[in-house]
Amino acid sequence: MSFNNNTTFAERIYSEKQNVCAIILAAGEGKRMKSNKPKAMMEVLFKPMLGWVIDAVRNAGVNDICVVTGHLEEMIKDYLSKNYTGEKSCSTVTQTERRGTGHAVMMAKDFLEAHKDGSVLILNGDAPFMDSKNIANSYFFHSAQRNCVTVISAMLEDASGYGRIIRDADGRLLSIVEHKEATLDQLAVKEVNSGAYWFNVNALLSVLDTEHIKCSSVTGEYYLPDTVKLLGDAADAYTADSSSVVMGANDPVQLNELNHIARIGILGGMIADGVSIPCSDGVIIGPDAVVGSGTVVLPGTILRGRVSVGNNCTLGPNSLIENSIIHDNVIINSSQIKQSEILEGTDIGPFSQVRPNCKIGPKVHIGDFVEVKNSVLDEGTKVAHLTYVGDSDIGKRVNFGCGCVTVNYDGQHKARCKVGDNAFIGCNTNLVAPVQIGDGAYTAAGSTITGDVPSDSLGIARARQVNKDGWAATKRGK
Amino acid sequence: MSFNNNTTFAERIYSEKQNVCAIILAAGEGKRMKSNKPKAMMEVLFKPMLGWVIDAVRNAGVNDICVVTGHLEEMIKDYLSKNYTGEKSCSTVTQTERRGTGHAVMMAKDFLEAHKDGSVLILNGDAPFMDSKNIANSYFFHSAQRNCVTVISAMLEDASGYGRIIRDADGRLLSIVEHKEATLDQLAVKEVNSGAYWFNVNALLSVLDTEHIKCSSVTGEYYLPDTVKLLGDAADAYTADSSSVVMGANDPVQLNELNHIARIGILGGMIADGVSIPCSDGVIIGPDAVVGSGTVVLPGTILRGRVSVGNNCTLGPNSLIENSIIHDNVIINSSQIKQSEILEGTDIGPFSQVRPNCKIGPKVHIGDFVEVKNSVLDEGTKVAHLTYVGDSDIGKRVNFGCGCVTVNYDGQHKARCKVGDNAFIGCNTNLVAPVQIGDGAYTAAGSTITGDVPSDSLGIARARQVNKDGWAATKRGK
Amino acid sequence: MSFNNNTTFAERIYSEKQNVCAIILAAGEGKRMKSNKPKAMMEVLFKPMLGWVIDAVRNAGVNDICVVTGHLEEMIKDYLSKNYTGEKSCSTVTQTERRGTGHAVMMAKDFLEAHKDGSVLILNGDAPFMDSKNIANSYFFHSAQRNCVTVISAMLEDASGYGRIIRDADGRLLSIVEHKEATLDQLAVKEVNSGAYWFNVNALLSVLDTEHIKCSSVTGEYYLPDTVKLLGDAADAYTADSSSVVMGANDPVQLNELNHIARIGILGGMIADGVSIPCSDGVIIGPDAVVGSGTVVLPGTILRGRVSVGNNCTLGPNSLIENSIIHDNVIINSSQIKQSEILEGTDIGPFSQVRPNCKIGPKVHIGDFVEVKNSVLDEGTKVAHLTYVGDSDIGKRVNFGCGCVTVNYDGQHKARCKVGDNAFIGCNTNLVAPVQIGDGAYTAAGSTITGDVPSDSLGIARARQVNKDGWAATKRGK
Repeated sequence: MSFNNNTTFAERIYSEKQNVCAIILAAGEGKRMKSNKPKAMMEVLFKPMLGWVIDAVRNAGVNDICVVTGHLEEMIKDYLSKNYTGEKSCSTVTQTERRGTGHAVMMAKDFLEAHKDGSVLILNGDAPFMDSKNIANSYFFHSAQRNCVTVISAMLEDASGYGRIIRDADGRLLSIVEHKEATLDQLAVKEVNSGAYWFNVNALLSVLDTEHIKCSSVTGEYYLPDTVKLLGDAADAYTADSSSVVMGANDPVQLNELNHIARIGILGGMIADGVSIPCSDGVIIGPDAVVGSGTVVLPGTILRGRVSVGNNCTLGPNSLIENSIIHDNVIINSSQIKQSEILEGTDIGPFSQVRPNCKIGPKVHIGDFVEVKNSVLDEGTKVAHLTYVGDSDIGKRVNFGCGCVTVNYDGQHKARCKVGDNAFIGCNTNLVAPVQIGDGAYTAAGSTITGDVPSDSLGIARARQVNKDGWAATKRGK
Repeated sequence: MSFNNNTTFAERIYSEKQNVCAIILAAGEGKRMKSNKPKAMMEVLFKPMLGWVIDAVRNAGVNDICVVTGHLEEMIKDYLSKNYTGEKSCSTVTQTERRGTGHAVMMAKDFLEAHKDGSVLILNGDAPFMDSKNIANSYFFHSAQRNCVTVISAMLEDASGYGRIIRDADGRLLSIVEHKEATLDQLAVKEVNSGAYWFNVNALLSVLDTEHIKCSSVTGEYYLPDTVKLLGDAADAYTADSSSVVMGANDPVQLNELNHIARIGILGGMIADGVSIPCSDGVIIGPDAVVGSGTVVLPGTILRGRVSVGNNCTLGPNSLIENSIIHDNVIINSSQIKQSEILEGTDIGPFSQVRPNCKIGPKVHIGDFVEVKNSVLDEGTKVAHLTYVGDSDIGKRVNFGCGCVTVNYDGQHKARCKVGDNAFIGCNTNLVAPVQIGDGAYTAAGSTITGDVPSDSLGIARARQVNKDGWAATKRGK
Repeated sequence: MSFNNNTTFAERIYSEKQNVCAIILAAGEGKRMKSNKPKAMMEVLFKPMLGWVIDAVRNAGVNDICVVTGHLEEMIKDYLSKNYTGEKSCSTVTQTERRGTGHAVMMAKDFLEAHKDGSVLILNGDAPFMDSKNIANSYFFHSAQRNCVTVISAMLEDASGYGRIIRDADGRLLSIVEHKEATLDQLAVKEVNSGAYWFNVNALLSVLDTEHIKCSSVTGEYYLPDTVKLLGDAADAYTADSSSVVMGANDPVQLNELNHIARIGILGGMIADGVSIPCSDGVIIGPDAVVGSGTVVLPGTILRGRVSVGNNCTLGPNSLIENSIIHDNVIINSSQIKQSEILEGTDIGPFSQVRPNCKIGPKVHIGDFVEVKNSVLDEGTKVAHLTYVGDSDIGKRVNFGCGCVTVNYDGQHKARCKVGDNAFIGCNTNLVAPVQIGDGAYTAAGSTITGDVPSDSLGIARARQVNKDGWAATKRGK
């Protein structure tokens, strides 16, 4: 079991050769979550559980995915449209009434028809730790055995509440018995249903209707596990190698526990791989981050979304990095980086912010209280303190003094600044965009520069100093 | 047992109908604490233990409180005068010598005389987890049974060191036996004295003197538990529903443990109520904070003092919020907020500070490296970076450029700035107070504005730019 | 066992009277560490394990130290030359091939010859928790018994993998048996070899060659423990009072565990000594830090290197202090301090940085977004916000407005600014170094000051304000 999506698994279905697809059940409401989100959108390490499931399915080599939505489905569709586009896009169908897992799959009948003669993986959108390896291996098992249905199961020390996997003397799946309906002998069984199944699509379609799957007289719902009995002899169970594949959350406390398990799992893996985390307090590394060996991660550091960090970096304390690429030997001290690329040997911080769409480095120095946004800072440039560089293209070996501002907005439009190699921008300079500072040019401290400064020239815009003798003494006298 | 003072208890004494009062014993020194504070002033989650006790007493509906002070009493009186004023004020009496709990209560004889025919709760100022519910329920028990004294007791797994509650065959209180004086049978008793008691005031007064309560020949002290024997048949014990009511601290390690227990207790309650805390490392939420469901609290975030946070906010990482009101949908990223109100939909940070007496929002944007102090920022205003707004009244939809300063102090006096709706303050502008910028007015980047700028006008105060060709090349040549 | 190097031990060898020296084995590679450092350079709480060992040896009173280097020895030599200079310097010898501990000591034969008739401590450079007390006490034992060799041993609950200490009926050391070669009876022994030994130098030299110490036919290595047999009756073992003296790390996970143990050990000691750490998450206090009682350390605070903190300070949340001296009653809120001295009653932060070589205080106020570097700020001076003070000498009771910059670099040279007592630097002032502001002088807001301002005078350098009526309305009209 790995909590990190970037791990390469030996096992992977080569879907171009196989007719495989997946249906993810994500219509649930999760009333006990005290949240205004669909349950599958609740987050584990800042990533919706649905995202964990989709990525596990895709990483296993299953690319054709249909999500069954229901409660607040617009939120799910919005998430899918932003995060799974192009080749990665998922189709959706709507389950307008909540009438059980069997009913949910019926909504995807057209999707199934389109995959006739293939295999379909059906799984829950709110069990985030079902991983690629178990998905792929259960498919190989399902496929080799030519089963009509293969339940993915797991061994639990405390199976209480879960449906039990009942096997016959030969070890083949006999039935799935719900906890409430289990006999004492059955309750002793520790193998449980994960809620994920591989079906032969044709076999599933042959029983996927309200005549075969009966409506529960108690709840009025149609249950997918009922298909196991209907598909009789050709059913079996594949035991996953980790109990975490069955984990879900029914309330905020359980969701918190999932966060804890995932967080510890990822950090433990990183430490073993040579990432130095001398104290992991407040460190959160999401499932879509990779960190190179020799890199030190200090307390309070958060890597969120798709983050790639090279070797021998120092991150933190208290740095927040989102969806960014950090090359080797970079230092990010108590700073925040979003949607940007930081090149080799650059150091940033403490207390600076790189906002989206920047490319900074190599060997750039950004000190304290600096904001950079939508800009390029080329090799060897220094922005030491109290400066804002926005919408700008900055050359190599430029030196920004303290308190500089790129005035990129006039109240109506945004424009860009361009600063050439080896330029020197004096302290408290305003560069009023659009403006160009030539290679090797200077600006005088305290100048508001509204026109271009040619290469190797000085731009100056300030008043001459006058001293008023005794002024302060008089003022104090008042 | 709840660690959060804001919880509404079903049980509460309606004191306007009841003659109830309380004496809190807070004269202790706590030598082993290695501190220069009275013991009851030692803090649990940034709040003196005495404050925990006073609030529990008041929340139970007991409003008339006398605090017995002694060691460094000025520190306690100062705390009370700042935090418990008006209707909430407490009276104090001084115990000049440390001569035991019985002696301490004798100091409050006048207070008791003033509550004749009523009931008095006597409890320790350094047992912070005695809560309103147990105070109220023990009163109902005390009152229904018409006891002369009701000891509040608790069940402990390890009762070692505590006075044991000895009951007769009918379950009535027989006596309280100190640990040192207990027989083997008595040592096996797990019910202990919490050190809190309800007395019938008249009964207490009848025995509250050095003739009835004997001086210990060993320590020279007078013990309040001795009154239990003196009040004979009309004594009983009420068992609290949590062992934490007896908890106190005799040294820094135990105090640390109280902090841990309170912190975990509060966080656990918040998570169960739908506050999302994906990793609670470094998160400290004090007993006087409320947080709405759907709000996310990231690592390192501290809520200190009276803090109210709405729904669906994001706090942190590493935000510090003190005595403030945060409305719904607010984001506070790595910033500090003190004694202020942040209205709906406002976002702040990273790395900004809101100092006391601000009202900001709704939908205001404050970016990085911004300080706001004693100011109002109205709806939709933006202060994106490196700016100080102090002693100012800022209208709606104002845009501050980067590096702006309200010059609110001339070395002798402070004055205010006023900026009208839709104004645009250019980058690196100084607004020298007192000054007014009219509705829709602009200031040019780099201007020091010393006079008012009329509505829809431009205020400009800067020198024209001159370029000195080749200056930089010459300079480098030197 | 103490994890803090500053603890004063009762036991200490007075080396001026004794002929004692030490050889530290630090040639190891630590392949499994996934690191590009020699194993002894791997860090525990930001300090190389070798540094822990050297300091423990020196604190025990052993000043003459030879380090045996090998793998990447330049890194070790570089570390020694920067951190152990003058009286503290260590000599080194190189072991070019990795041929066992016996072979490593042979490399130091010249060092041993120079200490004839004395005693030598031989220990591993990667067992960081061997402490001064056990080193000194084992020496006293070794010396009193006139042993030829004294092994320092420890009792372990789980001795698996360690060499066992086999004693005779009188309790004298018989032999050290490696785990792999131990009988069942020997495996049951819980006393193990720490890998540290005291030798009589002459005795050691008499057997320190490849004729006495045999090459292992399995590994081709020469083992130091073989000397125990060779030195026969005059060998014994001294049992350390803590099992942690044997602890080392063979992989990143074990190194992480050492960090955890050291961190918890130091924090626990601090809490017991009256440092208030209400929540220790993210708090890392290194082995070379001292903190006075009454000081509060908030979450996320890191003290790194040689740090001395006085009484009744408040550090954090999230402050980082490196190699600095902090006097009493100082507040450092979410700020970073490096190689500087902060005098009594000064408060800094949130979000400020003091870079190396500053002396600040007493009673200085530094607010938010302030950087100070290589400067002196004298008593009562205030630098409230968004200001950079670099390479400057600032007097008493100076007030810096917001946005001030000391312009200390002209692109080619650095120069200093000097500001006299009671001066008032207006907001957004640039002080272009070299420049002097006299006592009690003012600078006007928005001025770039390039020449000295005499005492009690005003320096002003700015354009007059002009208002262009209706300009903004026209602009918007466009």
